[in-house]
Amino acid sequence: MATIQEQSGGLARMLEQTRAMTQELVSVLEPDDYVVQTADYTSPQKWHVGHVSWIYEMVMRRMDPSYEATPLADSPYLNSYYNGAGTPHPKADRGRAARPATGDLLAYFEEITQRLRPLASGPLGDKAASLLTLAVHHEMQHQELMVYDLQHMLASDYAPARRLGAPAPPRRELPKSVHIRGGVREIGHAGGGFCYDVESPAHRVYLEDYEIDALPVTCGEYEKFIADGGYADYRHWLSDGWDAARKNSWEAPMYWSSVGGRWHVRDFGGLRPVNPDEPVCCLSYYEADAYARWAGRRLPTEAEWEVAACYDESAARRLAFPWGDAPPEPSRANLLESRIWARTPVGSYPDSASPSGCEQMIGDVWEWTSSEFVPYPGFESGFEEYNDKWFGGQKVLRGGSSATPGASIRPTYRNFFRPEERWMFAGFRCAA
Amino acid sequence: MATIQEQSGGLARMLEQTRAMTQELVSVLEPDDYVVQTADYTSPQKWHVGHVSWIYEMVMRRMDPSYEATPLADSPYLNSYYNGAGTPHPKADRGRAARPATGDLLAYFEEITQRLRPLASGPLGDKAASLLTLAVHHEMQHQELMVYDLQHMLASDYAPARRLGAPAPPRRELPKSVHIRGGVREIGHAGGGFCYDVESPAHRVYLEDYEIDALPVTCGEYEKFIADGGYADYRHWLSDGWDAARKNSWEAPMYWSSVGGRWHVRDFGGLRPVNPDEPVCCLSYYEADAYARWAGRRLPTEAEWEVAACYDESAARRLAFPWGDAPPEPSRANLLESRIWARTPVGSYPDSASPSGCEQMIGDVWEWTSSEFVPYPGFESGFEEYNDKWFGGQKVLRGGSSATPGASIRPTYRNFFRPEERWMFAGFRCAA
Amino acid sequence: MATIQEQSGGLARMLEQTRAMTQELVSVLEPDDYVVQTADYTSPQKWHVGHVSWIYEMVMRRMDPSYEATPLADSPYLNSYYNGAGTPHPKADRGRAARPATGDLLAYFEEITQRLRPLASGPLGDKAASLLTLAVHHEMQHQELMVYDLQHMLASDYAPARRLGAPAPPRRELPKSVHIRGGVREIGHAGGGFCYDVESPAHRVYLEDYEIDALPVTCGEYEKFIADGGYADYRHWLSDGWDAARKNSWEAPMYWSSVGGRWHVRDFGGLRPVNPDEPVCCLSYYEADAYARWAGRRLPTEAEWEVAACYDESAARRLAFPWGDAPPEPSRANLLESRIWARTPVGSYPDSASPSGCEQMIGDVWEWTSSEFVPYPGFESGFEEYNDKWFGGQKVLRGGSSATPGASIRPTYRNFFRPEERWMFAGFRCAA
Amino acid sequence: MATIQEQSGGLARMLEQTRAMTQELVSVLEPDDYVVQTADYTSPQKWHVGHVSWIYEMVMRRMDPSYEATPLADSPYLNSYYNGAGTPHPKADRGRAARPATGDLLAYFEEITQRLRPLASGPLGDKAASLLTLAVHHEMQHQELMVYDLQHMLASDYAPARRLGAPAPPRRELPKSVHIRGGVREIGHAGGGFCYDVESPAHRVYLEDYEIDALPVTCGEYEKFIADGGYADYRHWLSDGWDAARKNSWEAPMYWSSVGGRWHVRDFGGLRPVNPDEPVCCLSYYEADAYARWAGRRLPTEAEWEVAACYDESAARRLAFPWGDAPPEPSRANLLESRIWARTPVGSYPDSASPSGCEQMIGDVWEWTSSEFVPYPGFESGFEEYNDKWFGGQKVLRGGSSATPGASIRPTYRNFFRPEERWMFAGFRCAA
Repeated sequence: MATIQEQSGGLARMLEQTRAMTQELVSVLEPDDYVVQTADYTSPQKWHVGHVSWIYEMVMRRMDPSYEATPLADSPYLNSYYNGAGTPHPKADRGRAARPATGDLLAYFEEITQRLRPLASGPLGDKAASLLTLAVHHEMQHQELMVYDLQHMLASDYAPARRLGAPAPPRRELPKSVHIRGGVREIGHAGGGFCYDVESPAHRVYLEDYEIDALPVTCGEYEKFIADGGYADYRHWLSDGWDAARKNSWEAPMYWSSVGGRWHVRDFGGLRPVNPDEPVCCLSYYEADAYARWAGRRLPTEAEWEVAACYDESAARRLAFPWGDAPPEPSRANLLESRIWARTPVGSYPDSASPSGCEQMIGDVWEWTSSEFVPYPGFESGFEEYNDKWFGGQKVLRGGSSATPGASIRPTYRNFFRPEERWMFAGFRCAA
Repeated sequence: MATIQEQSGGLARMLEQTRAMTQELVSVLEPDDYVVQTADYTSPQKWHVGHVSWIYEMVMRRMDPSYEATPLADSPYLNSYYNGAGTPHPKADRGRAARPATGDLLAYFEEITQRLRPLASGPLGDKAASLLTLAVHHEMQHQELMVYDLQHMLASDYAPARRLGAPAPPRRELPKSVHIRGGVREIGHAGGGFCYDVESPAHRVYLEDYEIDALPVTCGEYEKFIADGGYADYRHWLSDGWDAARKNSWEAPMYWSSVGGRWHVRDFGGLRPVNPDEPVCCLSYYEADAYARWAGRRLPTEAEWEVAACYDESAARRLAFPWGDAPPEPSRANLLESRIWARTPVGSYPDSASPSGCEQMIGDVWEWTSSEFVPYPGFESGFEEYNDKWFGGQKVLRGGSSATPGASIRPTYRNFFRPEERWMFAGFRCAA
Repeated sequence: MATIQEQSGGLARMLEQTRAMTQELVSVLEPDDYVVQTADYTSPQKWHVGHVSWIYEMVMRRMDPSYEATPLADSPYLNSYYNGAGTPHPKADRGRAARPATGDLLAYFEEITQRLRPLASGPLGDKAASLLTLAVHHEMQHQELMVYDLQHMLASDYAPARRLGAPAPPRRELPKSVHIRGGVREIGHAGGGFCYDVESPAHRVYLEDYEIDALPVTCGEYEKFIADGGYADYRHWLSDGWDAARKNSWEAPMYWSSVGGRWHVRDFGGLRPVNPDEPVCCLSYYEADAYARWAGRRLPTEAEWEVAACYDESAARRLAFPWGDAPPEPSRANLLESRIWARTPVGSYPDSASPSGCEQMIGDVWEWTSSEFVPYPGFESGFEEYNDKWFGGQKVLRGGSSATPGASIRPTYRNFFRPEERWMFAGFRCAA
Repeated sequence: MATIQEQSGGLARMLEQTRAMTQELVSVLEPDDYVVQTADYTSPQKWHVGHVSWIYEMVMRRMDPSYEATPLADSPYLNSYYNGAGTPHPKADRGRAARPATGDLLAYFEEITQRLRPLASGPLGDKAASLLTLAVHHEMQHQELMVYDLQHMLASDYAPARRLGAPAPPRRELPKSVHIRGGVREIGHAGGGFCYDVESPAHRVYLEDYEIDALPVTCGEYEKFIADGGYADYRHWLSDGWDAARKNSWEAPMYWSSVGGRWHVRDFGGLRPVNPDEPVCCLSYYEADAYARWAGRRLPTEAEWEVAACYDESAARRLAFPWGDAPPEPSRANLLESRIWARTPVGSYPDSASPSGCEQMIGDVWEWTSSEFVPYPGFESGFEEYNDKWFGGQKVLRGGSSATPGASIRPTYRNFFRPEERWMFAGFRCAA
């Protein structure tokens, strides 16, 4: 795991911003919206509010053996999957619990914030700073899940928290795919700043030459796959994908439905016609893989994706971000936050292009890669039961979505989901 | 179905009392308590509030073709199982719906009450009076289910709405079983007042002589069955019951747990030691049947139960209630309502005894009988999709529980549940 | 349980005939046909061969404490559901066992026959005679199940053991329904001969006047129900039946399929057009019940069925069989055996009519009644874990099918199956 | 996919040997053993016999458009998973089919052999030779599955076809782990001879330095993991593995049971005490992975495994086999065939060591690697619906087992199974 270099001043600020964002996310909800769990794989909003706070309490207990725990510190309900903290309440039954009540969990959230403030501002040892930083990033992860879960609760049924107001795509010739030269390259997190243990260590890989799309696959392109009978032809599909598509009656991405012969999508903008220029979103690995095979292409590996995003061949060095070493500017970060939950048409951000010419790799949709989520060579576990117990059986996604907090977006971030999951803001681009 | 003879004045009064009771039942709840569904077979409280109102709206539509429906009148969510009113929202997913929100359903409840008032007070045709009366009784049925569902939500986790304050059992010699002479007897609803269609018509049955317990089986008696290994010996059980007990790991009635070697029960009094004098409650037909076989006895048929409750052999006639023809006195009815959710120790009400000497047949626990819920000879359906589509596969229970509204308690009432269900307030008495 | 009055000479003869019939049933099979289990609710033929023999071995163990058991006497595989004999091999996995092999089970069958012969011929105490007689009748029950299971194995795929050659229906006016006068009547087994414990004791019931069909419902009548959309209209169905029909996509009786717009049935005659004059067969209780409701009628209770079959009102007494007190004549019994597996068109046997005028009550199709399988008043269990552990949750069928051995057909026989089961030779007649 | 270079003479010989071996495998079976399917993931032996023949018929159809198909050529039963050939009979129901009968399938097997002979001996075009060769290798794959399925049928219940007679482990100091230098290396199939398309193309990978065990993990070593509570400590397990172990009550490898406090294994030698020197076998990926974590190690990637098996660093080149470029000598190949189904103690074959010092990499147990089964860079599908529709969700195993036909063993062979599967002859070695 990477060294933690944030100053306590920075940590305190990040903590305040993160807590405030969580509160803002739920500020528009009606009482029922906190409580309901709409699928086995989603969670009630009140649970997220409590769970992100509970993790801090685990951390405070570690930091200070004499820490006085709250009554909720040992709640099985708030334990997601940590066997080390007792037997967790079953995930699929989070919506069956009337207690802890929403009011209690909002009070708990506030109480934990109060307890954290002096700690985050004070001097901290390396271990403590590392744990606390992790917990803040953990809260950011849940902010993104909260958005997914809210969308699943059928956006059109309540007053959308954010209206869509995405910029129109520029009137320019959009780039197609780019060619990338192979060789021994380095991937994985290097340099300063926070990262999860699974992003380390930086290490070398050998890549053959390859091509990769300059832009994510759009809804318009995906509609052609559907129109061509893509969902009904087993030859495009992995066997497991074909079975999943049959069993779940998939005929289009999640949240899509056909109204009057035209595809519509249901999201925070309500039910609206699909915008052909937006990246396609909320589909499974299997669908992305089938599209790619139909198109005579394939999905990139995570190494190919990362090299396409960050390697500057002319300078023979890696950049921290596609556009350079600087983190997203406040305006851009702000942008990320303020247009939460909307997708941006491809071509909207030509200045985000990587040296290789790939655009919109960061912050629109998570992109499926063909790589299984397994440890990097030389991996050492940084946290107990955090990421590494999920190795295997999941695919890596890269790039971050419009619902990812700006402070946690970086090209080395290895997100992971099972190949049949669809409710995340996930799209893809093809390689060859 | 029986003739409806309530005056409109009486109907209006009954309606007001019933609506007020439903409101009182939910008046103590916190927001989360309205929303949560704690098992596939329970329902959220907000759903009950909405559904009982929705049924009135179905009735008003029938009464007046020009009735102006509310926006919720066609809600699949509020439709329980009426195929005639569209495709119902799946029962097990009632806790997954954030909309209609609790606030909207409470407003809907009030709106429907407002609309009903002038109708209930005005002159009504026979058909209209019949339907409206049915809807009021339907609401009473749901009041009882609301109590079951609240108990299931783990009573001890919130402030109990009613405290237990049951009278102590009198210090007298309690009666054992009584002998009843056979012959051709009449059962089923006769005379005036409301009844469900399945209680009709009154008809003759032939009974052999039999014995029946004077009192419901108590917790103390049932503990002996447990202590004797009753749950581990297949010889006491029906094959289906044995399978259900194994599959669900039954070792005692629902809500019982062993604390420090002593059986406790979790109900509206919190977690408390089992009172050996209370009727055993919240167990399945299979458990009642196994106990009876273990005790060298059997469960009574519904005809045996009804004759034991109401037949006065010396006068050679049927009584409307065990204690005579008069409905429960206000004080008793009041008693029923005020001690809602508590069980009363056996022997508490010697003046409730039937002519044959059976006590506490009404208003403590529903009592399992061995009779399948099937139509009486000459049955004619009185309502569409109400009771008769449930014939078969369920067992009849008689008597009413401490959670049954006083106005809907009568000895001819045929309640029915599947033999494996346990969360109702159901006990039993044995026969031989 | 009824007294056993068979002479040992009679018992020995019945034993020989029964063993010979079982052997004949499997004599046409190819090796694979012995081993395969085609549904969770069927059993391999080799299992039947072994199990019927195993039961005799249980009996011989009881009869003689020094009995020297065979190696298969403790086989969990051969134990159907007797907890008292150890943990049975799971029923659904009978087709997963390569051992005991078919050859071993055929040898076992022969060995057991050898051991039984001297016992059946010798002098026997009452208890021993009773047990042995029961075991023979048990084998007859399995003969019928063997036929059901063979039919399920898709008759047309192998050389049918028996060709269909049913008599044509006579050219006469067929009777419709008959009227039967109510009163106190006796039902249940009385008099001599073997019966199962659940047929006892004979006891009185009170019946109102009723009507009952003179003949079983035919395929032609049932086709009208289908053509009228009967399977698509919830109003005809019990709620549980409607769910079962939806879940299993029922559109016609089992083994029926539509070929070129005409209903065909697949049975031991191969795939052939439905004969409109045959009794409809292989359908669930739910379908029979739905048909009856569609026809404005209902199913009879088992008491109504039995009184219609055997009560001679003019003589005010019960007959042993519809046609009188004599058992089926050899020719008729022979007929029963020789036309095994075929159905006979209604009206074929006018001389089988009961005093009330009902025909073909015995030996064509088992007839669903609306009665749940529960004990008669005064029931005492005659055998451990035999019939009485199945009380509840099943419906009584009466009359016997064309696959029922002649020696086990009698009007008091209470067969029972779950309401959703369909692979038995079950039909029905309506009442009103 | 690799070029097919076998001469038709060689192909004809290989075909004869392969058909003969399949016949020999089933020659000892009793009739029931052909028919029974003992788990959803196994198949009846008769099915294997038919299916391997059916594939040849698919090939012959392709080779000759005027080919006259047999009646079984379109059998859904014999179709495993080829959507292109119609809808396959469900895999889990292969044991429910009485037809085609065993006798018919053995005759079919013979008929297909007769038809193949002239083709295999005659001149063949490249495409035809390629397809026919593939079909022969396909049959070899099924020979191995036949052995797995036979073992699952509980070896001790029938006369073992092969007796165990493995050589004793030599009395020498066994090697531990070896160190391997990293760099850019080539893996994948190169040079002549048959391979599956998924082994191609040969391509470069970059490896860091690593260590790998010189021998497979033994039963004795694995027993220490069990004794240390390895199955009860979540910290050793992947989350999915922990769930699988809980759900399936895993406490030891498949076929192990504790008898009198000592671990026994049930295989073709009957039930016998575990030999601590044999490679551990028949366990899931999750168990192998948990063991490795417990031991402070990890599983190797498939690239690490292949380089350890074949790369000769001193000569800077790849070998075709660990011991050199020559295929297994007849005696060794013979050895492989003749000791089918037994495991050999570690250390038995020092002369099989690779240049890096790893022993017994070929022909004892398949070895789990941490690599997901995904296409190599530049992969092109060689056959329709053969291997590539299974990419993803499965782990690669390398090396071949004692049940793998000698002609199909090679270090580049990428076998694949789901991480929870256990009935294959799979073990593992650790890396670090």
